[in-house]
Amino acid sequence: MELESVAEVLRIEKWRLKGAMERKNAFTIDDFSPPYILFRKELRHVEKGTSVFLGDSIEVIRGFPKIRRAFYLKPMLQKHFKDNVVIEEKMNGYNVRAALVDGKFVAITRGGFVCPYTTLKLQEDENLLKFLTHNPELVVCGEVVGMENPYVAHEYPEAERFGFFCFDLRYKSTNKALPIEKRNSLLEKYQLKSVRLLGTYRTGEIDRIFEIVRELGREGREGVVIKDPEMKLSPIKYTPSETNTSDLAYAFRYPYEYGRDFSFSRIIREGYQAAEWEESEEELETRAMRLGKSILFPMVRSIRKVMAGGVLTEDFIVRVNSEEEIKALVIFLRRQGINFILKDSGIDLDEHIYLIKRLRNSTTDKIKSYLSGRFE
Amino acid sequence: MELESVAEVLRIEKWRLKGAMERKNAFTIDDFSPPYILFRKELRHVEKGTSVFLGDSIEVIRGFPKIRRAFYLKPMLQKHFKDNVVIEEKMNGYNVRAALVDGKFVAITRGGFVCPYTTLKLQEDENLLKFLTHNPELVVCGEVVGMENPYVAHEYPEAERFGFFCFDLRYKSTNKALPIEKRNSLLEKYQLKSVRLLGTYRTGEIDRIFEIVRELGREGREGVVIKDPEMKLSPIKYTPSETNTSDLAYAFRYPYEYGRDFSFSRIIREGYQAAEWEESEEELETRAMRLGKSILFPMVRSIRKVMAGGVLTEDFIVRVNSEEEIKALVIFLRRQGINFILKDSGIDLDEHIYLIKRLRNSTTDKIKSYLSGRFE
Repeated sequence: MELESVAEVLRIEKWRLKGAMERKNAFTIDDFSPPYILFRKELRHVEKGTSVFLGDSIEVIRGFPKIRRAFYLKPMLQKHFKDNVVIEEKMNGYNVRAALVDGKFVAITRGGFVCPYTTLKLQEDENLLKFLTHNPELVVCGEVVGMENPYVAHEYPEAERFGFFCFDLRYKSTNKALPIEKRNSLLEKYQLKSVRLLGTYRTGEIDRIFEIVRELGREGREGVVIKDPEMKLSPIKYTPSETNTSDLAYAFRYPYEYGRDFSFSRIIREGYQAAEWEESEEELETRAMRLGKSILFPMVRSIRKVMAGGVLTEDFIVRVNSEEEIKALVIFLRRQGINFILKDSGIDLDEHIYLIKRLRNSTTDKIKSYLSGRFE
Repeated sequence: MELESVAEVLRIEKWRLKGAMERKNAFTIDDFSPPYILFRKELRHVEKGTSVFLGDSIEVIRGFPKIRRAFYLKPMLQKHFKDNVVIEEKMNGYNVRAALVDGKFVAITRGGFVCPYTTLKLQEDENLLKFLTHNPELVVCGEVVGMENPYVAHEYPEAERFGFFCFDLRYKSTNKALPIEKRNSLLEKYQLKSVRLLGTYRTGEIDRIFEIVRELGREGREGVVIKDPEMKLSPIKYTPSETNTSDLAYAFRYPYEYGRDFSFSRIIREGYQAAEWEESEEELETRAMRLGKSILFPMVRSIRKVMAGGVLTEDFIVRVNSEEEIKALVIFLRRQGINFILKDSGIDLDEHIYLIKRLRNSTTDKIKSYLSGRFE
């Protein structure tokens, strides 16, 4: 039986794997070739988002490890890292792992799905294919950013439509990451784009690190990932106030989809940062105003939109080469339970540019019910 | 068996009552005379907070019904009420039901406990005792406010230390409330203090009601309760922005004790009110600033206090007549799991004035752990 081989490859007991599949914490996607088992939840050392491809041989692409966040940076830095840390930019897009399985190129989302859209887009990157062909045991982990994708639309001058920026090279089945220098020289050799490298610092140089974070905030960029140069210790992320509040603004556009936990944690970050940065009364007021507006304004806008009879949607642009490609994407998104309307963008009749209007029904419906006289 | 008689008096099946007691959703307090069964959760038509006294006869004091809140007032008012509504002030203190059981005076908290402190204080009110003696079938429901109590310290000029303001007269076992006029004439006859009556309005007079709420906000007062004059429909509460944000400021002093749900709901209120009040850009900015400050400032203050080695407490003043009385209160509060330090206030050596410093350990400990290098 195949399950036995999968369990063996993952070095996990067969009964555990069977149990996970019975509870639907792992399940098979069989309309892809080769079919794959996807881990919706972590199972022992097997990360959430791991995909196991059942081709001629069994190939494992391990889930991307969760990057923990620092609320209060200084003591964490001293405690967690050794002498030096590498600071890299954290970009605001979606996490993708690109690899070859059975010689076939796949782009896998954080959740472990082979995304047809991302796969098509990245397939056009000859450097990436060449890299993977020469290094089939590696996975290129990076962020897809820009305005043309169905997940996270965020403007980047260096990738207005669609860009892929690598941050890790990891071994397929162990998930071990190459040391930073080794990674850099490989990326350079194959001319793969990397996220911005912001320097190596001693863990004591906290003020310089904060200055970088503040500068990124001013530029509207997401934040930093702090790494062990050897990549033996797990990385840590840290973001400026502008990112925390812009996340909040997003959450409060759709408060009943992104509820309590999402917003509470982002609010809390602001408290720790203000305390750690020893802000003055005036700086605190600026921060309070940014915080208050990020919560109130989008919420009021959404309520007003529903008052006016509108429906709340989140709009994405995608650009494909053919009708078949958009059909594949639609099927893929719907199967994940994403509720949306597809529209031809009308931007350019010669090109296949579409609008994916994701419906935010929980928020629309809940606001509607309060507007028609419901209680708390 | 006594349980049988209790079930009968409550008009509930015996097996249900037995089940509730087995699950500890109802339990007996037997160091009070007479002993009583307290309902920690609602059981069919029996409200949470109901107390059943097992004296010579069985006497039921039904739990105070939950008052629902309007997020968006206008349609709710039209839908829920008839032509007219009575507007009364909602005060910021703690809900108390005063009654005679077995001829003995008791003051019961929202949770259904006979509070020794509140009982002693209210016992000094001769008008209240006289009223209850003449109307033993009634319960006087009101708010205890002022700075001297172990639950909610809030300044009121009309009751700086301790005041009790009635808002409902209800029948002991049915929980039915007297119509407003009947209540008023009884309160007047016995010279019992009532919460402020702010007038009777047609449900269409929404702008006048909003004006009242705004004025209360400016005065730092909590809000309104909107009632059916006949008290046949359940009342509704509604609060100004100043109250929502002052609740938030309280929550974010101790963010890990009052977490996600408490703050999310209060944030959401601000959105609906701003939308319903059709606020201008400028008004929205004022509201956003108030919101942001109410969240950020207390949180930063608490973090700074822990950074400086402090411990977060919430302080209450209580004033009693003897050492026995403070001992009884201490035992009562501890039994409810309230963690505090008792201190002599040192204010006046001739009087028994104490400080109850309630320890907010969850927040203190969590902040401490982040300050010492913990991750999210």
